[in-house]
Amino acid sequence: MHISKFVTPEIIFGNNSINQVGESLRRLGAKKVFVVSDHEIFNFGWTEEAIYYLRQNGLSHFNWNEVTSNPKDYEIHEGVKKYLHNDCDAVLGVGGGSVIDAAKSIALLGTNGGTIHQYEGVDKITVPLPPMVMIPTTAGSGSEVSQFSIIVDTKRSVKMTIISKSLVPDIAIIDPRTLTTMDHRLTAYTGMDVLTHAIESYISLAATPLTQVLSLQAIRLVAKFLRPSTASKYNMAAKESMAMASLQAGLAFSNAILGAAHAISHQLGGLLDCPHGEVTAILLPHVMQFNLIACPEKYIDMAEAFGEKTFGLSEMEASRLAIQAVQDLVTDLGIPATVSKHGLQDDHIPALSQNALNDACMITNPRDMTLEDIASILKQIV
Amino acid sequence: MHISKFVTPEIIFGNNSINQVGESLRRLGAKKVFVVSDHEIFNFGWTEEAIYYLRQNGLSHFNWNEVTSNPKDYEIHEGVKKYLHNDCDAVLGVGGGSVIDAAKSIALLGTNGGTIHQYEGVDKITVPLPPMVMIPTTAGSGSEVSQFSIIVDTKRSVKMTIISKSLVPDIAIIDPRTLTTMDHRLTAYTGMDVLTHAIESYISLAATPLTQVLSLQAIRLVAKFLRPSTASKYNMAAKESMAMASLQAGLAFSNAILGAAHAISHQLGGLLDCPHGEVTAILLPHVMQFNLIACPEKYIDMAEAFGEKTFGLSEMEASRLAIQAVQDLVTDLGIPATVSKHGLQDDHIPALSQNALNDACMITNPRDMTLEDIASILKQIV
Ligand SMILES: [Fe+2]
Ligand SMILES: [Fe+2]
Repeated sequence: MHISKFVTPEIIFGNNSINQVGESLRRLGAKKVFVVSDHEIFNFGWTEEAIYYLRQNGLSHFNWNEVTSNPKDYEIHEGVKKYLHNDCDAVLGVGGGSVIDAAKSIALLGTNGGTIHQYEGVDKITVPLPPMVMIPTTAGSGSEVSQFSIIVDTKRSVKMTIISKSLVPDIAIIDPRTLTTMDHRLTAYTGMDVLTHAIESYISLAATPLTQVLSLQAIRLVAKFLRPSTASKYNMAAKESMAMASLQAGLAFSNAILGAAHAISHQLGGLLDCPHGEVTAILLPHVMQFNLIACPEKYIDMAEAFGEKTFGLSEMEASRLAIQAVQDLVTDLGIPATVSKHGLQDDHIPALSQNALNDACMITNPRDMTLEDIASILKQIV
Repeated sequence: MHISKFVTPEIIFGNNSINQVGESLRRLGAKKVFVVSDHEIFNFGWTEEAIYYLRQNGLSHFNWNEVTSNPKDYEIHEGVKKYLHNDCDAVLGVGGGSVIDAAKSIALLGTNGGTIHQYEGVDKITVPLPPMVMIPTTAGSGSEVSQFSIIVDTKRSVKMTIISKSLVPDIAIIDPRTLTTMDHRLTAYTGMDVLTHAIESYISLAATPLTQVLSLQAIRLVAKFLRPSTASKYNMAAKESMAMASLQAGLAFSNAILGAAHAISHQLGGLLDCPHGEVTAILLPHVMQFNLIACPEKYIDMAEAFGEKTFGLSEMEASRLAIQAVQDLVTDLGIPATVSKHGLQDDHIPALSQNALNDACMITNPRDMTLEDIASILKQIV
């Protein structure tokens, strides 16, 4: 039995919980809040709704909406300049995983200085960060509760993983209403990202009984609610359950780390700037097939969480039902089978495989992966 | 859907994790640590083991071991005098629920001043507390992760409940080795307390999907591991699982609150100074019987977590299996049927019932309870 650690932010969950954001930041001692968002989320009105509650609580703010999908190193550096220039002392992120990852990295540089590249890896942060509150608008990246920030190094075209307890926000405000402005495709992709967090954290070499109970429950919720949530923008019961699934999977993976699907997906995103949820969803069944022999008994737990009937089956028959359940979900949601439309080509594979092998998420994958193993998975999704 | 909040300390879990205590307190900025414990735990050596790691990390300390079971207001006031007189700036608790509750209340007065009575109720704390690290030696009270501190008002002979996010320790260090120095009786009683936390939080009016997944898993672990843990001091697998059950139930009840078994048990403890775990275990089946009609469907979930077979049964038949499973466990562990040996008499009942009705834990009980209902339960355990 090794020693494990478990860290979470304070969590505020529920419809209309955005109205807690002003009080939350005031309680953390904020005076001027740097509000990070993107143009799409701003246009949906969520950013302004949050700013309304900042004003109501006597807080000033500076709003910066220039984050793009797969946030880039130069965006972080531009953001922190605005943060410092405007004398901000706290950070609020309103958006999907890219916005929240960017907000966390801006907060990091806001007090620690330097360039974001210096902090790549585990525990490189020395100075406490300013107060951070995050409002996720997808379900989702889990970044609002995690100790990760993933930023593209544009020179090398790789994704850098920054891991530190300091990156866990102070407060995560999860308002399921925000999920009603996602289109069906984004709902499906981000929901599959939640499922991948749940599955990879469940079979991670760093999983603990505490993270595993959260991973399994997230799988149960995704199995039941991702289809109806994708079917309708207005099914609030499904949105609430997917928000809860995202939260539980986020708490699990933040503390148990992930695996090969994320290692490969990160590097595909770094090279081709393709959407994280979509690529991860395409990779998941292939990586599950590869990892199966590491822990078939855990695959049986996951199959049962999907509602599959394992009674009377052999261990290997039962464990394969987990892969089949994921494959069925992928089919029902209309997830494509390849990444070709994002420009993945055969000659990308050697460099991509090497980058994925070096990704921080590869360390906890339950089955050892070689360069050839990664290349062979990539060949199936070209 | 109402807005719910979820707060936890940082958690360090595993055998030998006590060796993290010095680094943990140093990281929190401590210079001189007020170490709260009791004579029994000190004699087992756990307090000195923790102090060894404080020294190794260059921290000075003052050790105060005068906490008794059901900690009293005057003990807190004596403790905080020592804390201030010795210029301490952080608090470490090493012990069971009484020690940890006392350590938290001493930390509270250390920065907020006044007497402990001023803070009875919800959210009365205004000034941040000094850094707090807790090492529980029972599995257990859950106080190391909770926002509660329960202190006896000796003048009124009632237990005061103090609830505030500020009472959540910064870091909980859970080392299952510490459970090997409990005798079988304390193992059984504290384990039944864990079960009561899990059950009362599961059926609480303030339960959320996040607390419920933790409550149910704690029930599963207690159902499987409390008997073998009570049977042997040296069954480490059972100790580790009971430590995990205690942690999960603690996280659940800290955020979902408890119910009538705790409301009544608190006040029995306040009046007769009898051990919390024992009294709670005696009360639990009676309170479960009373609460059944509020939420039979949740009783079915709990019965299944106990491993009971509910297939083919009616809802009420299946739900009653949860009560039967608890009754069987109580019988197997040799828990007494009454509190008479602690001096409970019929003429205590009117005042006791009134105190229990006013207890903060009564608010979230799923079935409305009257004075007469409480009296009728108390009559069964005289
Ligand atoms: Fe992801
Ligand atoms: Fe208790």
